[in-house]
Amino acid sequence: MDRPIVVASNRGPVTFERDPLGNPTQRRGVGGLVTAVSGALRGREGIWIASAVTDEDRRVAGSGPVDVDLAGAMLHVRMVDVPPDTFRASVDGFSNRVLWFVHHYLWDPPRTPTFGDQENEAWDAYQDMNRRFAEAVAEAAPDGGTAVIQDYHLALVPQLLRKLRPDLAIGLFWHIPFAQPDYLSLLSDEWARGLLDGMLGADILGFQTDRWLRSFLACTRQILGIKPRDRILVAGGRTVRASTYPIGVNPEHLTEIAAEPAVKVARAGLEEWLGDRKLVLRVDRTELSKNILRGLRAYELLLERRPELRGRVVHLALLQPSRRSVPEYRDYIDECVAAAARVNDRFGPEAVRLEISDDFPRSLAAYTLYDVLVVNPVFDGMNLVAREGPCLNRRGGVLVLSRNAGASVELAPASLLVNPVDVDQTARAISDALDMPEEERQERARKLRRLARGRSPGKWLDAQLRDLEQRRP
Amino acid sequence: MDRPIVVASNRGPVTFERDPLGNPTQRRGVGGLVTAVSGALRGREGIWIASAVTDEDRRVAGSGPVDVDLAGAMLHVRMVDVPPDTFRASVDGFSNRVLWFVHHYLWDPPRTPTFGDQENEAWDAYQDMNRRFAEAVAEAAPDGGTAVIQDYHLALVPQLLRKLRPDLAIGLFWHIPFAQPDYLSLLSDEWARGLLDGMLGADILGFQTDRWLRSFLACTRQILGIKPRDRILVAGGRTVRASTYPIGVNPEHLTEIAAEPAVKVARAGLEEWLGDRKLVLRVDRTELSKNILRGLRAYELLLERRPELRGRVVHLALLQPSRRSVPEYRDYIDECVAAAARVNDRFGPEAVRLEISDDFPRSLAAYTLYDVLVVNPVFDGMNLVAREGPCLNRRGGVLVLSRNAGASVELAPASLLVNPVDVDQTARAISDALDMPEEERQERARKLRRLARGRSPGKWLDAQLRDLEQRRP
Repeated sequence: MDRPIVVASNRGPVTFERDPLGNPTQRRGVGGLVTAVSGALRGREGIWIASAVTDEDRRVAGSGPVDVDLAGAMLHVRMVDVPPDTFRASVDGFSNRVLWFVHHYLWDPPRTPTFGDQENEAWDAYQDMNRRFAEAVAEAAPDGGTAVIQDYHLALVPQLLRKLRPDLAIGLFWHIPFAQPDYLSLLSDEWARGLLDGMLGADILGFQTDRWLRSFLACTRQILGIKPRDRILVAGGRTVRASTYPIGVNPEHLTEIAAEPAVKVARAGLEEWLGDRKLVLRVDRTELSKNILRGLRAYELLLERRPELRGRVVHLALLQPSRRSVPEYRDYIDECVAAAARVNDRFGPEAVRLEISDDFPRSLAAYTLYDVLVVNPVFDGMNLVAREGPCLNRRGGVLVLSRNAGASVELAPASLLVNPVDVDQTARAISDALDMPEEERQERARKLRRLARGRSPGKWLDAQLRDLEQRRP
Repeated sequence: MDRPIVVASNRGPVTFERDPLGNPTQRRGVGGLVTAVSGALRGREGIWIASAVTDEDRRVAGSGPVDVDLAGAMLHVRMVDVPPDTFRASVDGFSNRVLWFVHHYLWDPPRTPTFGDQENEAWDAYQDMNRRFAEAVAEAAPDGGTAVIQDYHLALVPQLLRKLRPDLAIGLFWHIPFAQPDYLSLLSDEWARGLLDGMLGADILGFQTDRWLRSFLACTRQILGIKPRDRILVAGGRTVRASTYPIGVNPEHLTEIAAEPAVKVARAGLEEWLGDRKLVLRVDRTELSKNILRGLRAYELLLERRPELRGRVVHLALLQPSRRSVPEYRDYIDECVAAAARVNDRFGPEAVRLEISDDFPRSLAAYTLYDVLVVNPVFDGMNLVAREGPCLNRRGGVLVLSRNAGASVELAPASLLVNPVDVDQTARAISDALDMPEEERQERARKLRRLARGRSPGKWLDAQLRDLEQRRP
């Protein structure tokens, strides 16, 4: 295991830019995947293959790997130069508008999706981008090495890579939920089969939880006619193993960055604003699957039912902008803003505060302060907010958690689980959380913190590498 | 088997009214279920339990069973008097807005459903109505008799009835699709478990196709933790068997009614209107799951791509009004009307003709005349239009059929199958159907007619009764 591990993901650990003086600069990549994988690679050597996004990235792509020390992980970063139109069609058009939607059940089937030329071109671009990644990994990986491919953007890489480099041990980790076969079958046969076949090129397919794993197996069975036996699938004369590797957070790292001055300043600002009001918090990307709208409706219902809480509780929704170029997302955010305005019209000028900005220190500060954290996604592969919040909270805060978040598997015993579409139940859960006696709150919070810290990204990757080692071809 | 069979369904074979002179009159019930079950009971004696809908029905409900001869079936009809508010909440509020939606994947999960007080009350009403039906069946059924309960309106009846009448053999036939467990879990636990437990009171659970049956088994497994063995489930110390009984049409009966003068008149009118234009037909209820919108878009795409067809083809959409009191349906129909108007704006005043009316003779006449029949539901338990049309068509018409209609299992070899959300593919299928050489059309149509006629309602019920006899407690 001393050969460097090859990681491939759409978004890389850094992007390169030029500052106003024309000097090259690095910016840390965003998103849970980068945090998790870079945490996991601490103290190791890795080759990380990622898409070139900026112009400077493309320049870097032409000039070979760049060495980056990222929080203790020594990474050789290689950028894959995907032509901008192909990249947009593949990532925005196919990965994010088709695969993300299908696996999170985000369509309105009487009306959407409607597949046509645009989507067919997006599928072509997706295949092209996956080919480019497979070639880049094939070129970078040491003899008999190990490649861990990340997520739905690169689902075809395992099969393509295996043809180029049969000597590699190949893992694919699927970070998001997996749709059940009737819903997945809304995709064309070519796409659904292509997706599953592509994945089956791996030696190990990793999922966040048993639930998504079983849905994947139901798909291979219903769509490909391949029946699993003890989570082993036989495809193309090879065996593929499906396993779960729940992803976690790095609490030490979180604590470190939460101690930075920017977080302290943000915290002081929030405390002053809060006064003695209770804080019902949500932290999310502006994302259709996060169920922000029903969160606001549940809060509205709470204030409707319990007038004594008006003015004494505030709902802070910290939303990082995401996918603003996609019309479905713009419409959704407009609806959220309107819903928040309605609550404030009804129950006071600051019953809800909805902030759409990318202010990570403020999110960390808010984590320390919440009384109730609402994490109610319609569907979510894992959800790291549900782990980060409890790691940092100092107020015995209660977690109201969707039973459709992967995190619910482990955090259920210490949270208030809700059916995310049940606004009434969500409102009651927030109400119960606010009423919970101090002692019970503290005890739950302690238990929750222990559970939330339990899975480090290092262990997450270690387990995959160990299993891949055993299944080396 | 000489004891009368008890059938229970929400809609009965007749409703009672008063004519303007105050004399009681009977009107035949509508819908595929009534057609199928009354066809199946031809030449038998049956007791049919159904909801009282009209004021006259309620009067009848108070005065015991009414004997009705319905196309050769001798039926004793008993009306169950469900209070109007309960009936509305149960049927419109729960059965049609919750159960119908979940099993046809009709929600838009970022926004709908949002469960609250109204839905909780609807669930209470649903339980109440199911109790009343269970009591009515318990009262009417002969000793050691057989009860066949129909569809999702009455899913709780088997369990409730078993408690009252353990001597009965109880079947439940599920006419619609069955959702897979992640989607079904959008219901509250109480509802989802209640639904499955209620169904498991039956000796035999019948489904249209293997696909819906397997989805049901996946639900009992994921939601109740009950693992099937060879389609036998053990629940509450009893065994329940799941089987498929695909429903069909009665071609002789269809031919009879198609020969009636009203149909001939309608046919002459249609022929005159058509002239030498080709007819692309759809016949449906105004129903979200029928995919009328995408059908119109596919037709629009066809005319866009093939200018030579403009004015030489017409798309007739015959839509029977349905569920007009449900806002989702009103919105959807408005969208369909707007989509049809857009096609006509672009491609001529009568490229599409969309008729919303309840004109059965006109539908039968149109069946005889179509060149292409479009049956493209997003999901559909069986779909009888796909069988009725080919039974009556005389023009070698081609069937474009959704792969998500239960009918596709048997009709696939003689139809053009499409993924219903793939507008591009649907447009190409209609195009191919119009271009098909005469000989191939005629050969396909012959094969299709044979397949479409293959399942009579009589055989459908016979198979269930035979299986129930074997499993008599």
